[in-house]
Amino acid sequence: MPAAPRLSPADLAERLSELHPELTILGPSELTGRHAGEHPDNFAGGVMAQPGSSEAAAALVRWCADNSVAIVPQGGLTGLVGGNVSHAGEVILSSSRLNRILAIHADEMTVEVEAGVALETLQQAVAPHGLTTGIDLGSRGTATVGGMVSTNAGGILAFRNGVMRHQVLGLEAILPSGEIYSDMTRVVKVSAGPDLKHLFIGGEGAFGFVTKVVLKLEPLRPHRATAFIGVADAAAALSVIRHFRSLPAVTLEGAEMMWPRYIRDHAKLKNFDLSWLEDDAGALLIEVSAETVERATAALEEGLETLWEPADLKGGIIAQSLEQARRFWDIREDSGFYYADIPGAASFDISVPPTGLDAYVAGLHARLRAIDATYDAYVYGHIADGNLHITLIRRGPLMEAELLAVEGAVYFGVQEAGGSFSAEHGVGFEKRHGYETCISPEKRALARAIKQALDPKAMFNPGKVPFA
Amino acid sequence: MPAAPRLSPADLAERLSELHPELTILGPSELTGRHAGEHPDNFAGGVMAQPGSSEAAAALVRWCADNSVAIVPQGGLTGLVGGNVSHAGEVILSSSRLNRILAIHADEMTVEVEAGVALETLQQAVAPHGLTTGIDLGSRGTATVGGMVSTNAGGILAFRNGVMRHQVLGLEAILPSGEIYSDMTRVVKVSAGPDLKHLFIGGEGAFGFVTKVVLKLEPLRPHRATAFIGVADAAAALSVIRHFRSLPAVTLEGAEMMWPRYIRDHAKLKNFDLSWLEDDAGALLIEVSAETVERATAALEEGLETLWEPADLKGGIIAQSLEQARRFWDIREDSGFYYADIPGAASFDISVPPTGLDAYVAGLHARLRAIDATYDAYVYGHIADGNLHITLIRRGPLMEAELLAVEGAVYFGVQEAGGSFSAEHGVGFEKRHGYETCISPEKRALARAIKQALDPKAMFNPGKVPFA
Repeated sequence: MPAAPRLSPADLAERLSELHPELTILGPSELTGRHAGEHPDNFAGGVMAQPGSSEAAAALVRWCADNSVAIVPQGGLTGLVGGNVSHAGEVILSSSRLNRILAIHADEMTVEVEAGVALETLQQAVAPHGLTTGIDLGSRGTATVGGMVSTNAGGILAFRNGVMRHQVLGLEAILPSGEIYSDMTRVVKVSAGPDLKHLFIGGEGAFGFVTKVVLKLEPLRPHRATAFIGVADAAAALSVIRHFRSLPAVTLEGAEMMWPRYIRDHAKLKNFDLSWLEDDAGALLIEVSAETVERATAALEEGLETLWEPADLKGGIIAQSLEQARRFWDIREDSGFYYADIPGAASFDISVPPTGLDAYVAGLHARLRAIDATYDAYVYGHIADGNLHITLIRRGPLMEAELLAVEGAVYFGVQEAGGSFSAEHGVGFEKRHGYETCISPEKRALARAIKQALDPKAMFNPGKVPFA
Repeated sequence: MPAAPRLSPADLAERLSELHPELTILGPSELTGRHAGEHPDNFAGGVMAQPGSSEAAAALVRWCADNSVAIVPQGGLTGLVGGNVSHAGEVILSSSRLNRILAIHADEMTVEVEAGVALETLQQAVAPHGLTTGIDLGSRGTATVGGMVSTNAGGILAFRNGVMRHQVLGLEAILPSGEIYSDMTRVVKVSAGPDLKHLFIGGEGAFGFVTKVVLKLEPLRPHRATAFIGVADAAAALSVIRHFRSLPAVTLEGAEMMWPRYIRDHAKLKNFDLSWLEDDAGALLIEVSAETVERATAALEEGLETLWEPADLKGGIIAQSLEQARRFWDIREDSGFYYADIPGAASFDISVPPTGLDAYVAGLHARLRAIDATYDAYVYGHIADGNLHITLIRRGPLMEAELLAVEGAVYFGVQEAGGSFSAEHGVGFEKRHGYETCISPEKRALARAIKQALDPKAMFNPGKVPFA
């Protein structure tokens, strides 16, 4: 990590502005008042470089390397773990002007795209070709492809298609040295030496700045039907999911579970009718596609009937219009509804093998109550792949020791069960303690050794994972 | 790389035999006469350690690290690029006794398996649960899971499911230090710092020895139908593939193309009837699954009819029995038929984006003829993902300069097009020249830097990729 800042943000901005014709520099005055995304300190560095080309990005990185100025990569700023926070003396390297879709290879179902393109923009661009991305998530309007690569984003289709890592065929990145790492591979089969692009995927900006990506696409399946289904527990939800995944003529497009407290509180806030749902039941949001909307709807109707007794369902309602389906999804995706009531709520993002979900959630509640009998949690998430989001329901500021106790209750047994203390949000700096307690010393040492090999002066995203 | 060997193989074997109760050591006398797999020099080291547990493997590696003895990891020995070749003074570390299936999680469609389990053994073990592996390849009877991880194996389902890298959820490996890198994750969503298991996947034994693997599984689809279809070129084959991939009630299970010279010569050798195939046409092997065998067969019949004119098909024959389907597959999978006639034939394994296949193959033949007007090539492979196997048809020994010229003809333009000079076989030492000419200096330097960080004395699989 570099020494204390030697140039003020304003002076730094002035120096950078001459580096490359395709490099736009914003100084402290231009950044003031801009929305800094999900963390208030994202723009604290006060200097943002917006390259318009890979060469401009490389020129910026080379200058920073020569002058020992640290770099904080930024994309759509939807990150939830502080991975984009910057400090005075650092340069923010933003993908905001790297926003071109370079080539759509419809016959091969691949696309070449610059890192700053938002997921939804990409989805809209490939839709006329009958294609869509194999990954989707709630922040699709703002999250960028580059940011999704850097955090190995997951979302709602991971149970079927895998995570971002499984969608990336190739990429280009600027190394901490300023060299361009170019691997714009368009094929899935590559066994040509160590595949180092996987360092940049999920690397959270520690190993370089992603500038371009080649992604797999999949066929668009527009004929859909959506239902809310009442379930007693995750086991029941998983049997519903198994049913729909086993139908040869139907594709499962989403399976999101909300435990009772989440669905009740959110529905109340949004005046969403829950008369179809039994008391104390969780809600499973299911979306399927088929050859026609009618067939998709019929599959949901038949599924509800077939599963009603064996899965002991607690209610069900099928959306009668696209508008109603959107309201169903809003209950799941507008998951920050509780922040108005619990500012700065402690939130977690874990995964456990799906068959262990009920035992995990029961244990979680017991562990939280053991800390404080008034503690409860909102639990919801991408149930088919075992990814839960967990928010502590507890008003008022949380002391450090209390937060650590809650974190211990949330992470308890997760790694041993074959899960992950961080499933799709990353580590950033906010989950540092989790990284240090959940990840073995051998793994952390190895990550630091590789960081040292690629970025010996630790100039890329300092203070974040892997904390080298 | 260590200095010249200090112990004879026999002395080395004696030293190792006391290391751990779960470590079996075979010396030169026990290895003599054993089948060494696809390369005659695989057992040239003369000493093989067969650990029966991860701890025994770790003890062996620690001893080797302390005594500067190099290690050559070996699995099923089906590798085609010399990645398992050993030399006197080195210890072969074999997965042959790490052959237990540890846990089948049928409800989650995952399996935990030791590295030495053969692919087909695993497929047979999970079949009673209605499951199979998401990856399949011709050498399934011998290729081990650990070897498939190390080479990032591809095979016949990669167009749909991705390659081995996309099937691995977790793994355990012994690091060059002798430490155990344990990451037996059972979930797909992990964003918890750099994901270093991807160094071992496709690492060809350069970074450690894989001992255990957690794999995704997929539903078994037993109701199948198989056809041979005549096609004028790859473009026609791809339109056939697109057709079958677009059917919601049918799953494409294989799409293998053989260019005319391959299908003609192999069929003649095997007395396989080609009366259904027009002269000068290539043959596309298509297998589909559906709810019943009848529906799968009907889909093939309808597909042939629908596609006949628009894809300008050159013939078609649907297998009337499982036995006939097996004969179809044998024409594709017994691809070494030419070795009897051309011992040591120069063979290559490349991938190019599928829409560029016809231009590539035409250019390849022109480039080969420009070297020698008598040169021709067998071309066949996994057409849906652009993976071609290419064998030079040329009798008699090939001088080094001629081989380099042929290699240049094969690799020409492959990387620039977004393909790979090595698709699924790896680099080993036989493709070293390809690695050095096709992979950029920046990438090779990065790979060496990471090798240096993990294995500073270059004790793991020395002389192979990344040639550190």
